[in-house]
Amino acid sequence: MSIVIIFNNKDPKPWAEILQKKLPNTSVEIYSEVKDTTKIDFALCWKPEKNILNEFPNIKVVQSVGASVDGILTTQNLTDNQILTRIVDEQLSIDMFEFLLAGITGFMKKIPNYFLDQKNKVWQQKSYKTISKTTVTILGLGEIGTYVAQKISALGFSTKGWSKSEKKITNVISFCGENELKEALNGTDILINILPLTAETENILSSNNLKQLNEGACLINVGRGEHLVEADLIELLDNGYLAHAILDVFRVEPLPQEHPFWKHDKISVTPHIASITNVDSASDIVVANYKKFKNKEPLLNKVSLKKGY
Amino acid sequence: MSIVIIFNNKDPKPWAEILQKKLPNTSVEIYSEVKDTTKIDFALCWKPEKNILNEFPNIKVVQSVGASVDGILTTQNLTDNQILTRIVDEQLSIDMFEFLLAGITGFMKKIPNYFLDQKNKVWQQKSYKTISKTTVTILGLGEIGTYVAQKISALGFSTKGWSKSEKKITNVISFCGENELKEALNGTDILINILPLTAETENILSSNNLKQLNEGACLINVGRGEHLVEADLIELLDNGYLAHAILDVFRVEPLPQEHPFWKHDKISVTPHIASITNVDSASDIVVANYKKFKNKEPLLNKVSLKKGY
Repeated sequence: MSIVIIFNNKDPKPWAEILQKKLPNTSVEIYSEVKDTTKIDFALCWKPEKNILNEFPNIKVVQSVGASVDGILTTQNLTDNQILTRIVDEQLSIDMFEFLLAGITGFMKKIPNYFLDQKNKVWQQKSYKTISKTTVTILGLGEIGTYVAQKISALGFSTKGWSKSEKKITNVISFCGENELKEALNGTDILINILPLTAETENILSSNNLKQLNEGACLINVGRGEHLVEADLIELLDNGYLAHAILDVFRVEPLPQEHPFWKHDKISVTPHIASITNVDSASDIVVANYKKFKNKEPLLNKVSLKKGY
Repeated sequence: MSIVIIFNNKDPKPWAEILQKKLPNTSVEIYSEVKDTTKIDFALCWKPEKNILNEFPNIKVVQSVGASVDGILTTQNLTDNQILTRIVDEQLSIDMFEFLLAGITGFMKKIPNYFLDQKNKVWQQKSYKTISKTTVTILGLGEIGTYVAQKISALGFSTKGWSKSEKKITNVISFCGENELKEALNGTDILINILPLTAETENILSSNNLKQLNEGACLINVGRGEHLVEADLIELLDNGYLAHAILDVFRVEPLPQEHPFWKHDKISVTPHIASITNVDSASDIVVANYKKFKNKEPLLNKVSLKKGY
């Protein structure tokens, strides 16, 4: 049996090479070059096209190459006989934390404003925030969110977190469930969204919720574009309630040329680079899962098809 | 006897108000409103005009409102009967660290490049650096430099420091003296300059020294504009040896409109805002020094006229 690599908007070759090297006795095939679709039992996926897995009648394991699986769950009809797994790699958490640190401290020191000032040759000192007087709230306390919350709290920020189920993290005030969302958002200077995308979390970054933040707050979205109600954000930035937004994820990627986010002075756009899967360390996880699958052992980082994460 | 406030390019009123409030029985006068110059024995200074203190025959204490005193030492002829003091306020160190954190992590994640990309509506992912594989070197290990080195090291960066005299800081590899400067610079990804400005440190950020850094390194100058040989920096950025520079201090401030730094894509200009003296906490230090002076006690944060810091 063989592994197939099904990637969209991502080069499959480095993955094919490294997996073949680490699994010399297994056939690793890129989707466009598969000869016999019945021989495939393990699929490695990145944003697969709708129902593409139906072409492979014997697929047993679907492995996402990212930490998220919404691009698979919303496009394929997986059955209870199939196992969906994802990448949980500490480097993804570390990279995310370092991106957020750049965003948080940049906002606090008004770096995006100084970039604009530099363009216009304007020399104007502005006041800044300091860590000890800043409250950061993190939506989503999975592996990455928990790591980020711990690191941010250790730096001296007042840190709050919110998740679907109850979490206990030292020095992080945690809230859970829809009833406690408002309380989690209140008093927040910087809101970080790292939630998984599900029917319940879609559009959670709405005017109604964002208005619970402190006036002059900053939104950082590293979850999914579908979490954000775009028109609501633009309204709150334009009327001055929110000071800034840092957006790394979008409903359509790459962000379309005509999209208003590109030209908005209070929005920083980055091209989905907060945390990029590292082929070398992530391929170790794929290899481990393939071997466990062959040995009929429980797989790593299994996703609940029902919960969606 | 009275206190005089002599400020250039800085509003003296908030200082006059807060000092008068904290010293209700002392006369606090702004330079332009002084009636009897012979009654002044304590001067609070920010970038005073050349020899302006000669107008006050009975000055005994000159207090800088910043952490640095080069703006006083290079313009006034202080005698051994006069005491020069400066502000040492932990908030200055904290603010500096937070500014540097924004600069360091922004450089690592290529945020300045994404700002330019956004302007041009370009969606292009770039590789990034991670803390565990990045070496930061700090020139200047006084109060602020030592604080910054400790904090940066605690975040997981390989951290080196260099100063005139030997310093021992846990988890920071420290070098001292001219002979060890090259070794301190070698292998550096991010160089931070926080040195005091003296005859020996002027022009220390020269091509010769900057070429000791790793290729693709970033320079962050929060010391003084006079530390930097501007033409050397531009050459090293243009030929690609250095990747970026973050400059918060300049030989002439505000940075003149025609200066090439404004329009250089690899230079981030900020208007001397890394660490701004906080009037409330710093005025406590001024008040304490004024009281010690009146009580003939040793003053806080005395500067050696010979060493210049």
